[in-house]
This record gives sequence, C-alpha cells and structure tokens, in this order.
Amino acid sequence: MKLWEKDETSTSKIIDHFTVGNDRILDLEIAGYDLQASKAHAKMLNHVKLLTDQEWNQIEQELNRLLEQVKEGGFTIEEKFEDVHSKIEYELTQALGETGKKIHAGRSRNDQVLVCLHLYVKDQIDAIKDLIRALFDRLIDLSEKHKEIIIPGYTHMQVAMPSSFGLWFGSYAESLIDDLHMLNAAHEVADQNPLGSAAGYGSSLPLNRQMTTELLGFSTIKYNSVAAQMNRGRLEKLMSFGLSAVAGTLSKMAMDICQYTSQNFGFISFPNELTTGSSIMPHKKNPDVFELVRAKCNSIQNLPNQLTMIINNLPSGYHRDFQLLKEKLFPEVQTLKSCLRISEFMLRHIEVNDDIMKEEKYKYIYSVEEVNKKVLEGIPFREAYQRVAKSIEEGHFQPDRNLNHTHEGSIGNLCIDKIREKFANVV
Amino acid sequence: MKLWEKDETSTSKIIDHFTVGNDRILDLEIAGYDLQASKAHAKMLNHVKLLTDQEWNQIEQELNRLLEQVKEGGFTIEEKFEDVHSKIEYELTQALGETGKKIHAGRSRNDQVLVCLHLYVKDQIDAIKDLIRALFDRLIDLSEKHKEIIIPGYTHMQVAMPSSFGLWFGSYAESLIDDLHMLNAAHEVADQNPLGSAAGYGSSLPLNRQMTTELLGFSTIKYNSVAAQMNRGRLEKLMSFGLSAVAGTLSKMAMDICQYTSQNFGFISFPNELTTGSSIMPHKKNPDVFELVRAKCNSIQNLPNQLTMIINNLPSGYHRDFQLLKEKLFPEVQTLKSCLRISEFMLRHIEVNDDIMKEEKYKYIYSVEEVNKKVLEGIPFREAYQRVAKSIEEGHFQPDRNLNHTHEGSIGNLCIDKIREKFANVV
Amino acid sequence: MKLWEKDETSTSKIIDHFTVGNDRILDLEIAGYDLQASKAHAKMLNHVKLLTDQEWNQIEQELNRLLEQVKEGGFTIEEKFEDVHSKIEYELTQALGETGKKIHAGRSRNDQVLVCLHLYVKDQIDAIKDLIRALFDRLIDLSEKHKEIIIPGYTHMQVAMPSSFGLWFGSYAESLIDDLHMLNAAHEVADQNPLGSAAGYGSSLPLNRQMTTELLGFSTIKYNSVAAQMNRGRLEKLMSFGLSAVAGTLSKMAMDICQYTSQNFGFISFPNELTTGSSIMPHKKNPDVFELVRAKCNSIQNLPNQLTMIINNLPSGYHRDFQLLKEKLFPEVQTLKSCLRISEFMLRHIEVNDDIMKEEKYKYIYSVEEVNKKVLEGIPFREAYQRVAKSIEEGHFQPDRNLNHTHEGSIGNLCIDKIREKFANVV
Amino acid sequence: MKLWEKDETSTSKIIDHFTVGNDRILDLEIAGYDLQASKAHAKMLNHVKLLTDQEWNQIEQELNRLLEQVKEGGFTIEEKFEDVHSKIEYELTQALGETGKKIHAGRSRNDQVLVCLHLYVKDQIDAIKDLIRALFDRLIDLSEKHKEIIIPGYTHMQVAMPSSFGLWFGSYAESLIDDLHMLNAAHEVADQNPLGSAAGYGSSLPLNRQMTTELLGFSTIKYNSVAAQMNRGRLEKLMSFGLSAVAGTLSKMAMDICQYTSQNFGFISFPNELTTGSSIMPHKKNPDVFELVRAKCNSIQNLPNQLTMIINNLPSGYHRDFQLLKEKLFPEVQTLKSCLRISEFMLRHIEVNDDIMKEEKYKYIYSVEEVNKKVLEGIPFREAYQRVAKSIEEGHFQPDRNLNHTHEGSIGNLCIDKIREKFANVV
Repeated sequence: MKLWEKDETSTSKIIDHFTVGNDRILDLEIAGYDLQASKAHAKMLNHVKLLTDQEWNQIEQELNRLLEQVKEGGFTIEEKFEDVHSKIEYELTQALGETGKKIHAGRSRNDQVLVCLHLYVKDQIDAIKDLIRALFDRLIDLSEKHKEIIIPGYTHMQVAMPSSFGLWFGSYAESLIDDLHMLNAAHEVADQNPLGSAAGYGSSLPLNRQMTTELLGFSTIKYNSVAAQMNRGRLEKLMSFGLSAVAGTLSKMAMDICQYTSQNFGFISFPNELTTGSSIMPHKKNPDVFELVRAKCNSIQNLPNQLTMIINNLPSGYHRDFQLLKEKLFPEVQTLKSCLRISEFMLRHIEVNDDIMKEEKYKYIYSVEEVNKKVLEGIPFREAYQRVAKSIEEGHFQPDRNLNHTHEGSIGNLCIDKIREKFANVV
Repeated sequence: MKLWEKDETSTSKIIDHFTVGNDRILDLEIAGYDLQASKAHAKMLNHVKLLTDQEWNQIEQELNRLLEQVKEGGFTIEEKFEDVHSKIEYELTQALGETGKKIHAGRSRNDQVLVCLHLYVKDQIDAIKDLIRALFDRLIDLSEKHKEIIIPGYTHMQVAMPSSFGLWFGSYAESLIDDLHMLNAAHEVADQNPLGSAAGYGSSLPLNRQMTTELLGFSTIKYNSVAAQMNRGRLEKLMSFGLSAVAGTLSKMAMDICQYTSQNFGFISFPNELTTGSSIMPHKKNPDVFELVRAKCNSIQNLPNQLTMIINNLPSGYHRDFQLLKEKLFPEVQTLKSCLRISEFMLRHIEVNDDIMKEEKYKYIYSVEEVNKKVLEGIPFREAYQRVAKSIEEGHFQPDRNLNHTHEGSIGNLCIDKIREKFANVV
Repeated sequence: MKLWEKDETSTSKIIDHFTVGNDRILDLEIAGYDLQASKAHAKMLNHVKLLTDQEWNQIEQELNRLLEQVKEGGFTIEEKFEDVHSKIEYELTQALGETGKKIHAGRSRNDQVLVCLHLYVKDQIDAIKDLIRALFDRLIDLSEKHKEIIIPGYTHMQVAMPSSFGLWFGSYAESLIDDLHMLNAAHEVADQNPLGSAAGYGSSLPLNRQMTTELLGFSTIKYNSVAAQMNRGRLEKLMSFGLSAVAGTLSKMAMDICQYTSQNFGFISFPNELTTGSSIMPHKKNPDVFELVRAKCNSIQNLPNQLTMIINNLPSGYHRDFQLLKEKLFPEVQTLKSCLRISEFMLRHIEVNDDIMKEEKYKYIYSVEEVNKKVLEGIPFREAYQRVAKSIEEGHFQPDRNLNHTHEGSIGNLCIDKIREKFANVV
Repeated sequence: MKLWEKDETSTSKIIDHFTVGNDRILDLEIAGYDLQASKAHAKMLNHVKLLTDQEWNQIEQELNRLLEQVKEGGFTIEEKFEDVHSKIEYELTQALGETGKKIHAGRSRNDQVLVCLHLYVKDQIDAIKDLIRALFDRLIDLSEKHKEIIIPGYTHMQVAMPSSFGLWFGSYAESLIDDLHMLNAAHEVADQNPLGSAAGYGSSLPLNRQMTTELLGFSTIKYNSVAAQMNRGRLEKLMSFGLSAVAGTLSKMAMDICQYTSQNFGFISFPNELTTGSSIMPHKKNPDVFELVRAKCNSIQNLPNQLTMIINNLPSGYHRDFQLLKEKLFPEVQTLKSCLRISEFMLRHIEVNDDIMKEEKYKYIYSVEEVNKKVLEGIPFREAYQRVAKSIEEGHFQPDRNLNHTHEGSIGNLCIDKIREKFANVV
C-alpha cells in the first residue's frame, strides 16, 4: 500500500516492481531513525497544538512499541508497503485510527528520508571511528613492538634506504589521522537537522524546527528548506569522501601486505588458518583476506564517483533518482566496517621476519648512510654523493650496517607518543 | 642538467622528453614554496651545525634574491633543468660554489616536493575560501533582496510547491558551508610538515624537524617519515574532495540557471553582453558562461577519481607516477577559482522575473497550502489530502495565493542571520 | 567444504565469512556455464585418454542431471561450499567416487571461472541485443507515427529551431546502432576460449584446447595462457563499455522524457497508472519510472570505472580481488535489461501533445527558416542573418510556420528505411 | 571577432576570456579537417546551386591555400578569433568578399565541429593502430626470442607455476588484439557523416548529404539530424573506451616491468641510459619510463569517466559544455600515442635474466608438474594433489625441473603464428 495512491488499483505491478527496488530491505537500516524522528516530529506537533496531549501520548506509545520491535529484530516491511515510511504510518493508523492520520502534517517523505540519512551518517561515522581506533591501537602496538627490526625501504619499487617495521606499521597509524579529518567533516555536515524542510520548500504549518533539532540531538538546523533538500545526494557524497579516504589507506596497506608475504619479499606471514590454498597447487598459502580488503576498499574508493554520476547535472529539487543512493551507500559502509574489523584481526596474528637485511640484494641500501657520514665530516653533500656513487660503480662499496637515525619520525625516533596525541585530538 | 645524473650525456633525449613532461611549467606554481622551504631547511642545517653561519647567510641571501625574482615574475626554468628543484640548486651552486652543494644534505627531492605541495594546498584553500566568501555574500544579498518573489518549487521536475528567490539564492549560500567543512579538513591534513622525511625513510643526519615546522608555519609535524611520503597523492586526493564538494554546488547552481534562463521557464536573465549568440540563429541569447561553469565543475568532480586511478594499488614508497598528479591538480584548482570568480560576477548582473506565478500551469502549486489549511482546522492530514485531491480531479480547485510560511528556513523566515553566523564559524 | 583445504577445520569462520562473500548467490548465474564447460573438459580428457570411456559416460550423465536441475531452478549452493565449482565437484565425487576426483585434472578454478564468464558475456550480450531490437522497433514506429508533429528543438536549453517527434524518437533509435558496435566488440573479445589456461600458465597435461573450443561454440582460442588469465577483469571491463554505451543512450532519453513531461514543457505524458503521486501534494503525476531509468543507467555508466578501480595496477596473474568483479557486473547487467524492457513498455503507452508550437515563446524558432529563404533568393548567408536579426530586435519579425525540410535526416525526410537497414547490419 | 556577434563591442572581455578557453590552441589539431569539410560542403552547395561555379572555384582555391598553410605549420588562430571556424570564415570573407559570406549556408558550427571530430577520431584511431602494430611485432619477436627462458608464474602474488618469457611477452601481444576490437568499434561509429545536421535539427536548404559523405570518405550518413548532434560527447566517449582498453594493457605491462626490474625479482633490466638515478641514493637505477607509462595510462583509463561526467544528464541538443570535451580528449590521444611509442622503444633494449629459476624460493613452483605426473600415471587428481601436498609439508619434496607443456598456448607451444593471424584479422 502506498500512501500517495489515489486509487489503489491504478499502478500496474510492472511499474511497482521496477520502482520499489530494494527499498524494503535497505530501509530496515533506517527504521529506527524514522521512528526516532517521527517521535520528535509528533512531540513538536503537540507543542504547536497540531496534536492534543492525548494524541501525542498514543502516538508516542505506538512508536515506542515499534522501536522496541526494531531493537529486537522483529520489525519487517512487507510486500504491500513500498518503504519503511509507509509501513510505519500504516501501523499508526491501524492502531490509532484518525490520530495516526495526523502525524504526516508538516512533513514529507523527502524530509523524513533526509533526517534518517543525517542520523544514519552520524551514527555510522561514529561506528567507523571506533573501528579505526582499534586498528590504530593495533598498528601502534606493532610499531612499538617491532621497532628494532630493519626492513628495506623502497622508492620506484627499487630497494632504496633502510626502513623498519616500526616505521612501516606506524605509518598506517598516522595516516589514519588524516582520514579522520575527512570523516569529521562529513559528520559536521550530517549534524544539521533537515526535518521541517518537507518536500524541499518548507510548510505553511507553524512548525518548530528548533525543538526537533534539540530532541534529535543535532547541533544546528539546516535552515534553508531548499538547501536541506539539496543535501540529498550531497550528504552521501561528502560521507563517501570520508569512506574513500579510509579505504585508500586500508587498500594501500593491503597491497603492501600482499607484496610482503610474497616469496620474493618474505617480510611477513600469517598462520596457516588465516590464509587459503589453491585448487591445483599444493604448496600455496595465499593472502586472500588482504586481497579482498584491497579489492573491497578499491570499490569503496569508487563510491564518490558512483554517487556523483547519479546526482550530477540534476537541477535542484527532489528527484526519484535519489532513491538509488541508499543501495549504493549502505552496503559500502558495511563493507568498510568489515574491512577495518578483519584488518585489525589479521594484524593481531601477523608474524614478522626479523632477519631480512642479511640478503646481498639489500646491501646498497646503506649507501645514503655513507654519504651522510661524509657530510657530517664536512664534505659537501653533492661531492659526498659522487664519491659513494663511484665506490659503488667500482665495486668496492662496503656497507656499515650500524644505523643512527635520531630525528623526529625516523627509524630511531618514532614519536609514537606524539602520534597518539594527534590521534586523540581527532578521533 | 639533472642533479642525479652520474654521466651527463647518458640519458637519451627521447627518455628525457617523455619523463620531464610539463614539469618546467607546472613547477613555476611551486617555485616560491621551494625557496621558502629551502630557506627553512638551510637555517635548520645551520642550527644543527651542518652549515656555518657564513654559509647560511650566503644561502639565505641567494634564496631571497630568487624569491624576489619569483615575486616579480622573472623566474624561469630553462630546458636544461628537469624541474624547479634542480634549477634552484643549480643557482645556489653557481653563486656560492661548494656552499651551494651543501644544501641538499638531509633532504630528498621527495620531501622537497611534498613540503611544496603542503604549502600549496594550504595557500590555495585559503584563496578558494576567499572566493567562496565573496560568492556567499552575493548569494545572501540576492536572497535578501528578492525574498518576496515567489517561484515554483519543483520535485521530479514537476511543479510542486511555492518557493521563492529568497529560498533559491539562499540555498546555495547555505550549501557552501558544507563544502567549507571539506576544505577545512583538507587544510588540516596539509597543515603538517613533511620536510625531513627525505626519500620517505628519514635521514641519519641530526635534523631538527620541529624547527622547520615552526619556520614554515605548520601546526604540527607529519612525524612518521613513511607516513609523510605516503601523503603524496593522498594529500592531493583529499584536497580534491574539497574541490569536488565546491564544484558540485556550483555545477548544480549552473544547471538551475541554464534551465531558468530557458524560454520554458523564463525566471531569470542576464544582460546581452553577458550571453552569447548563435552562428545561425539570430534570436539566440545563450547562457554559455554557466554552461561552461557546469562543465568545468563537472570535470573537477572527476578529479578525485582521476587522482585515485593514478595512485591506487601502488605499494608504499615513492613512485615516479606521482609526478603526474601535479598536472592534474594544479589546472583544476585554477579552474575552480575562475568558476567561483565568474559566478559571483555574473550574479552581480542577474535579472529576476517578478511575475512568474501568474501562469496557469503553476496553479496547483497551492494545493498543499489548501491541505494544510484544513489541517489547521483540525482535519487529519490524510483526510485533508484526499479532499483536495478530489477537488483537483473534479476540476473545481481554486488556489488561494496568499502564503503564510513562518517556520525556520521557510519562505517567510529565511534565517539569513543564522546562516551568516554558521558561515562565519567555518570560513 | 573447500577443495583446496588440507585440513578442514583449520580455517576460522571469520576468514571464511569475509572471503566467500556473495559467491554462493552470484554463482547461481553461472552454474549452467560451469556444467557445460565441465562437460566439454571431461569429454576432452576422455579424448586424450585421461578419462576412460566409462568414466566419461558417468560424468556426462551426472553433469546432465545437474544441468537439468539448474534449468528447473532446483540447483542450490549450500553453506558448506564456497562456490559453484566446489559444489559441482562435490556432487560428482559423491555420485562417482574416484571418477569424480579426476575431472579437475588439467584445469584450475581460474580457467573454470574464466570460461564461465566468457560464455556469460556472450549470452548476456545476445539477450541485451534482443531487448535493444524491441526498443529500436518501438522508437522507429513512434518516429514514423508522429513524424508530422513539430516540437521545438533546443540548443543551450534555449528554443532554437523546429524539430519534430519524428526526429526525436528516431534519434534514439539511430543512436542505439552505435551502442551495438561496442557490444559487438565486447562479444568478439568474449568469443575466445580460455579453457585450458589453467591457473594462467597452462598445464603439463596433453590437453586439446581446439576440441573444447569447438564443443563450447567459441570462434577461436585465447591462445596464450597468460593472456587468457589476463582477461579476467579486462573482459568484464570491455563488456562494461558496451553496457555503458547503451546506458548512456537510455539515460539521455530518460532525461528528455522527464523534462518533456514537466508542466514547463508539456510535450508528452503517460497514463496515470504509469506515473506516481506525492505523499503531500495531491496534484502530482511524477515520471518516476524514467527518473529511475536515468539513475540506474547512470550507475551503469559508472561500472567501467568501478571495475577499472579494482583491477588497476595489479601485476599479471590471478588475484583474489577478481572475485569482487562478479558482484559488480552481474547485477548491472540485469539492471540494464530491466531498463531496456521497461523503457519499451512505457513508450508503448506514451501520449504526445500535437499542439505544442502555438505558444508565443516558440515563435523565434522560425528565424533560421527566414534566413534560409533569403539565402535561396541569393542573399549571402551572413547578410541574411543580419537582416533577420534586425527584424527580431526591432520587434517586427513574423514567423512563417510552413516548413520545407527535404535533405536526408531532416524533419521532412527521416530516412527511416536507411536507419532500419543500418541497424540490421549490426544487430 | 566572433561571427555571431551582433554588436562587436558588447561582450565584455571577462566573459570572452572565460568562454574561449584553450580553443585557439586545441583547434589547430582540427584545422585541416575543417578545411576539408568546408571544401566538401562548398562543392555540395555548388551542386545544389547555392554557389555558382565561379564562387565554388574561388572558395576551393582559398581553402586549398589554407590547407597548404596547415600542412606547412604556418596556420594560426589569432586572439581576435574565438575558434578555428571563425578564423577560416574570416579568411574566406577577407579574400572573397560576398562569396565568403555564402559558405555558412546550410551548416552550423555544431555540425562543423562534429564532422571535424568524426574525421579526427578516424585518423587518430588509424594512427594508434599503426603504433599498436609496431608494439605487437616487438612483443611477438621477444616472445619468440626468449621462449626457452623459464620465469616463475604468480597467482595471489605468490610463486605458483612455471611460466616463461615466451608466455609473458606473448600475453601482451595477444591482449592487444582485444583492444583493437574496441578501437574498431569506435572507428565504425566515427565513420558516419554528421555534416548537414546543422545545429542538430537539419536545414530547410536542399542539401545533398550523400554527396558530402562520399567526398569526405565516410562509409555512411549519420541520418537523423538529432542523432548526429547527439553524438557530440558520445563519439568522444566511445573512442575513449578504445583508448582505455589499450591503456589498460600498457599500464599492466608497465606494472609488471616495474616489478620485474626490482631487486626482489631481478627478471629484466634496461641499459643505464634508459633509467634514471636518485637525487640522494647513488646506487639507484629507476624504471621511470614505465612508471610514467603506468601513470599516464591510468590517467587515460579515467578518460571515459571524465567525459561521461561532463555530458551526463544533459538533455538532447547542443550545450556549450561540449566545448570542454576537446581539451580532455585531444591531449590523452597524444599521450597514448607517446606511451605506445616509448614502450616499443624501451622493449627494443630490454635485457632478460636467463638464470632466474635456480633460486630456492622458486622450488615449489614445480609441485603441479608433480601432481600432473601422478595423474598421467592414473592417480585421480585430488589424490595426487593430497600426496604432493603431504611431501611438501613433510619437507621431502624435490622438484623435477624438466618441463613438458605441449597444449595450445602453453610454455612449449606458444601458437605465435595463430596469434599473428588473429591480429592480422583485426588490425
């Protein structure tokens, strides 16, 4: 049953099937938010005398009952409803008759969905930040634990200079801080109440938007009704920037891990039960988890483009196109969360090789050290460089493997406390 | 002349031509930053005794001379240099001999470029914010000025409900606030000093990164050297999110404007000298400026994808691929700035039609008002809705064109002061 | 149960859940192809004496039984299997014991999936072409039927010159021909047999790839085993180019339709039961179907990017990342088919307004006709243009609404037969 | 000077600067095509009596003179012209007076640009195909030459099975065939004459489009005028699919090469003069050329998205947005050509390591051979697999390094002739 239907038999099934899409499943993710927002809206209607105290009490009770159902997992959206909003209004009307028919005054499905999305984005970003915190802590612990183990650092995929597991693990930890800035920005955008913008042009009813803003815990109102509606698609896109930032970090880490577990590197490994085998090669031990983290995070990095492609070049005002955004955004949010979770889980079991540098191929890695030693003796850098280059070319370069890096952020001075502090300011 | 060349005749021209690309032109945008960072680096080398006071004084003087050249527009990068960094080191060596050869101690071209990019991003975001402020003010003024003029509000591209020029202009103003959140996040990411990370693995020289951080006006250090290097590409990408956000807002506004200037709408117009004609149709008056704003901003919205496509799935460590990022980012930054500038310029001359609503086709726009009036009389919303629907179907619906919208963010209550206040907190 | 597991209890559930993903559902789409390819592979193994005649007969019988199951919809992939390939091998082993264990000789899951995808792409492109044919026919019919009805043609969204429904419907028909070229190219790429490339490096068993090529109806072999494997991701991407081409055409048509149904145009309409209403505005009649066609086709136009983002910068050889491609490609193929189907369905019911041009705002559309008339009288084009421009400016331009367009592809000469002919050569 | 200007002083400079953009430079690439098309158009106008024989002769002579100028590189577009079309018409009018003013009859800048683009796409695809042929030949030669050298084949970035340089080089050769299918499809789309569609709605003049089609060497007419105009953007997009296909192949090859030149692989190398060094690490020999090939080809793979983002959701009819397409497409076409050229150049000098497999880490690569040997002895595959797996686990696996791969497309049977044949059918 669709609420806007004037004649219930008029819309043919083929249209219905095409237009409703996956909304009945997707909307389960926002059922709780719709109930919450409906409560705030009804309480406000009572405040401005569009609902009597008795009506408001009945409605509150019924919405609380449905909220309970959502929490317990018993809430469903049956075939006869096109979305969660229709279902909830139906339930109210079934239970309360005329009173139930009053709740839609002063709102539209447009601002109903919008307010749900704003609440959803805020909640999900909070949940993602919790998972980032766990991953950050894991990375920092590994950085601390393995800080003495030297590994080759690469540039141009060529062995370049000495690095360390301390640097490597720590680098992903510190990078997550940047991603948090993007997530926080999206959170700020979400933290504005669109409820009351109705179909995007406000209402002639004497709504009190300040009141619903406070009831729903928003920091401010998205004032202009057209701007509020315009955020449909934009909010999802801005959130996807945050998701893409985190996904980029995870994807890169996964790439490193896949490479480092290759026999051509052999820097790290995972216990057998965390890898997979091959259907034809009995010796294989594949890092499937991180290959999939990489792929999934690369898909997430496509999300901003996907959302932009859908909303782009549409003039202002609501378009049904926006319906599709939910089915693009919601699954990727879940995917990012599962990638964060499993990455932390895998890193809990990572095994590092502490004897990498003995291999002959890494010998020239120490050449910059040699250059710098000469610099400290007063030889101009470019001249020191030429001399070491010559000794390498002539084949008598012998590395001194004693490292002495002391500046902030170098092998010998990881600044873990400083990084922790920066993280704490953002998370 | 390339500084890393062991044998200056060894690299064939074909390779040189392919690899150097547009760097000599693009690097002019960052010449000032490289000089600034070189000064900070040299002063720090002096502080840690890797340059004598006299050497530092000579270097400072020479760098100041070049900075002056940059300011006056006389600085160039000739064919024989592969980039700005080579050119500057060459100048120093030409002028100061052995002393000039000392400045590259403790740094790499990798962190040289990085620190330039961090400074560039900060500066450009500041410049963009200034332009956004001007556009915001223009939009707010227009919102205020035309707040009484009613226009149709659309949903599904169908006439829907009464809107106003006050709402419409104001909506883009308030939307810019969201975009500023993204720009500010990118600014935070840029505001970390990568200098001292050298080739991405730090240095064995006793650098003082805190000192260069202060000299260059960064809020904090990007501590971990691997993380600092990892920001190459990520920084550009995160900045592009901010650009894309602003571009999305401008593109949508441009779409509205193109539509509203169409004879099928006729809501707004521009003076003849701001439109263009047709090579075959003598009656045309085309909104080319906003068509190009739309197209250019759509190209900018592709930037995050373009950058991601280049950096994606590369393991950690520097890759020459990153060179290409500059030629993707720099022009789009200029494009966004020109779009902001011209949009504000055009809006200064916009002419609005104050007699839109008289047309018969907009009559049903008042139907929701009618429904709401009944709601205020105590009729449940769904019932009121059915009654008005019936009167429309039966052809005797007569709109009452008197509007009374009072809630926050509606036609009658634009909350311009509140929006100004929100803007001031973010810009 | 996964076939590559050495120790069946070793892989923890968390890993399994993360890595298997949606494969059990997605693989149902390719179960038939896997059975078909398994039959061809087994017959070939029999031919090269790796299976006895009796073993082959048993295997064939069992595979036919499963094929029957697939056709009848009774085939399922239970929780204990990670994909369709494991399930089928399990069934064979259950039914035939030792014989079942022989079928995997000389192949790998890599070429198993690959051959399924090649067969899938061929089939789906054929199916899409059938739907395009139906849409083409519908558009051509409408073009023919309404060829006399003039509508305004737009440039820059400004009314420009006379067009017609004949031109408009016909334009989308002829555009579909271009899209077919892209689909055909993808079909050619798919029409090469990858079976026998095993894990991407061939096999030491004496396989006969020519034989499976013929049995499976491929035109040629994808010879080089590394190239065959390299097509994973590339095939999907090249197919997505074809999908994106068609989607671009549909999306543009949907945009036109949404605009033309707006009250500001009023060119076309659909019966009530094919439009939807509003939850708060009783007068609305929204073109939701075409808004969703537009959005869905825009999502499809993002598919090439999505696939590229996942496969890009991966070195040659199989990566688990490829698993994700199926879940990106398969649903979008279904979506495109449903969009083609419903577009044709909707167009069957489209109603056109045959009295558009009377409106004053379209008057200047005839100015080019006026210019051309003067040209035919011998006045140079630029001068004729100036004269008409002047008459418009001075307000005494009076249009002559009689049109006489005769050249190929103009209002008066739609060349429908020629377009039909071109279509027939490509479809 | 812009031809459509009614009053030449009316358009302010700021607008001009913003709207003209880079057209004056970009248009040089299509000047020859515009002259060619202008000749065909004028000859046709003469044929339909809109130009006298004398006028046509004068125009032909003048256009030939300009064509000569283009060939010799002396043709320029000065500041006072907004594009190449204005410049050419200006030259004609300067030289021929009234006669020059007649050539624009029956055409619009819209179909002028379109026909140039169609000719450009055809030409550029031909040029790209020539470069692909050279690269294909180089790869096939290398495949043939190094067919005996075994290298490890990877799956999941783990050493997996024996491969060979014969397979590896050959794989990229055969993959190029698929890309040619996409280029050919785009060529087919381009090979339709849009001239005569004027501003997208045809003309009331009695044009003969068949005649210009033959004169310009097109295979057919793009009949429907609206469809012809609709190809603006679509043509570029469909061509970009072809470019993206080729770029994907090159990018992947570049990734392999960068990895294989790493010390962790050491499979291939290039002479010193084809690599670059480091500004601080004297031992470095970086594969910058292929890093840039990878990056540039990744940028090209973004092109379809970039073009789609600009044209998407625009209703039918010309929009000024399309102007931007040239500046996105043209440079990437040149980039792809330079990447093809330099890849072939570099491969001419590639040095391969013929002693890779001796390293202990590649030992298990032979395990599948061992399994297959047992299969040939009659042991069911799954059982053979278990036995070899056990011997590996227990540490007594000893590889037999003699390989005997005989089937089509395997190490021992590269099918180079068959691949050459397939290539010849498509190029």
